[in-house]
Amino acid sequence: MKVSELGEFGLIELLADIVDKTKNLQNASWRQLLIGIGDDAAAWQGDGSIQLATTDSLVQDTHFDLNITGWEELGWKAIAVNLSDIAAMGGVPRYALVSLALPGELETDSLTGLYQGMAHIANEFGVAIAGGNIASAGKTMITVTVLGRLEGKHALTRSAAIPGDRVAVTGYLGVSASGLRMLKQNLNLDAETSNLLRQAHLQPTPRVKEGQTLLRQGVRAAIDVSDGLIADLAHICKASQVSARIREKLVPIHPVVQASFKADCRQLALTGGEDYELLFTATNQVIEQVKQAVSCPVTVIGEITEGMPGQVTLIDTAGRSIDWQKAGWEHFKSEA
Amino acid sequence: MKVSELGEFGLIELLADIVDKTKNLQNASWRQLLIGIGDDAAAWQGDGSIQLATTDSLVQDTHFDLNITGWEELGWKAIAVNLSDIAAMGGVPRYALVSLALPGELETDSLTGLYQGMAHIANEFGVAIAGGNIASAGKTMITVTVLGRLEGKHALTRSAAIPGDRVAVTGYLGVSASGLRMLKQNLNLDAETSNLLRQAHLQPTPRVKEGQTLLRQGVRAAIDVSDGLIADLAHICKASQVSARIREKLVPIHPVVQASFKADCRQLALTGGEDYELLFTATNQVIEQVKQAVSCPVTVIGEITEGMPGQVTLIDTAGRSIDWQKAGWEHFKSEA
Repeated sequence: MKVSELGEFGLIELLADIVDKTKNLQNASWRQLLIGIGDDAAAWQGDGSIQLATTDSLVQDTHFDLNITGWEELGWKAIAVNLSDIAAMGGVPRYALVSLALPGELETDSLTGLYQGMAHIANEFGVAIAGGNIASAGKTMITVTVLGRLEGKHALTRSAAIPGDRVAVTGYLGVSASGLRMLKQNLNLDAETSNLLRQAHLQPTPRVKEGQTLLRQGVRAAIDVSDGLIADLAHICKASQVSARIREKLVPIHPVVQASFKADCRQLALTGGEDYELLFTATNQVIEQVKQAVSCPVTVIGEITEGMPGQVTLIDTAGRSIDWQKAGWEHFKSEA
Repeated sequence: MKVSELGEFGLIELLADIVDKTKNLQNASWRQLLIGIGDDAAAWQGDGSIQLATTDSLVQDTHFDLNITGWEELGWKAIAVNLSDIAAMGGVPRYALVSLALPGELETDSLTGLYQGMAHIANEFGVAIAGGNIASAGKTMITVTVLGRLEGKHALTRSAAIPGDRVAVTGYLGVSASGLRMLKQNLNLDAETSNLLRQAHLQPTPRVKEGQTLLRQGVRAAIDVSDGLIADLAHICKASQVSARIREKLVPIHPVVQASFKADCRQLALTGGEDYELLFTATNQVIEQVKQAVSCPVTVIGEITEGMPGQVTLIDTAGRSIDWQKAGWEHFKSEA
């Protein structure tokens, strides 16, 4: 079978299975590992606090297009996507390692820009760029690893959602995907909209403080919105062995997305991804506390239910139930 | 200026300079960072012990050729090169994160092999594979990050060599480069030689225990031989602001390399690289202690001297002094 047939998530399961079957519990490293492959970050018991580690790559022509992305923006985003994974665990990011694969014909000025963008966001979030590696390659690829730690005794995880929990999300959705569409199609929007959308897609702000607040307020289950709201909620549901039901009319689509992409705004918000908001589940009471404690919007969009692990049902604006696993993105698109 | 004109080491200096100039010492992460960009691994003060982190990539057609490398071997090597960096700091490796960039048409069986190779070496060295990431790309690229820790209060570094130190190396040199040549040129050597060379190039054994022993015995300066003996010694000399002089007749060229590649064995041992032996400097007394404490050969090959930072002089078998910075690899080649 080919990688493309199995898909990213099937592949992760396959590889996690090999690692699980071959692991040697005689090793202290394995015994102290608290969260392995399959969550936003790995976690293990350190000398004092719990340590977190995550890695993510941006690959030229897969994740970014140099015709629409500036090098500083790229540097910012390469770090941001990793900080977002630490945020989804409720952690404090501390150190970053940067592994670059580069074509020899690249201008060094481009790399100066890349590193200035990385240094900018690193400083904003208290992260030190501690090391890295450079290799020659046909296309540019930036792999960042961020190490962090937890201030409490446990992390936010994908696997802690329980039936009865409400599902909530920080901020607004659909902005990053709208930005990508604007950039790709070279749409001519007003300056304010254009800046907002460009920044959301190319220089997203990870919800690091908010993740720590969620943890302190008693939230246990969270993920960052990178693959898309529905897909990421399905990750929580699969890991937690539960189902979820969300109401389309409650989903916080950004007003600018509604105004600029009227016909597709539902699709952009539900499936677009890369908003790097935090999607979490908790009791009503905990969510109320979270709302008081953070400065961004927090919106309840549905609830966790018993049912088929991983199943997400969408109640659309007409009141119809759509089983996401069966219907998928294509179905929803045709309904739009 | 283009990346290829500046070169890997010039580029590292450029990027390290940006990071240094933009760092914010208000951040605790920066204040606790002990060793940043430019050594084999980064080091920072953790809650208890000093933490180590290193990252290294293997890029298809830059670092490996799938016509001569098996997937299990590739998995082994991707972890091994990182363990070698931890070894060069005297550290204990603990966790690995694996970031894969893969073409969709790759067979999943290949990845099963890759992960079996990684799991194999990880278990041998007490390392848990804790997480990772998968992205789509035109060519295969494997980026591994290894986290470790120190059992003592300081690390082996490139910057601790002092004039008067002897220069020593573990094991034998030239074996990996001979293996690469054999594989590339499809040379027909006897089975025992062929296995030895293949393994040295594709499944090198990092000197993890030996690195820890060096540290315990009082060695302060070390690097692993990845770029080549002369180049790696020059890294130590540059970081330590010293020169070095080595005697060619003392360099431990593997007997099999001498027998199979008579004309080029000097060049293979001095510049071939990827032997993943440890190159270190210390007093005669400390080196004697190291010899007693490890089971592999340890050979004194020269000494650290005052002089131009980074300068390495080779005394060849005819007693001539060759300034490596001026002469370089090409000069030496013509002498062979």
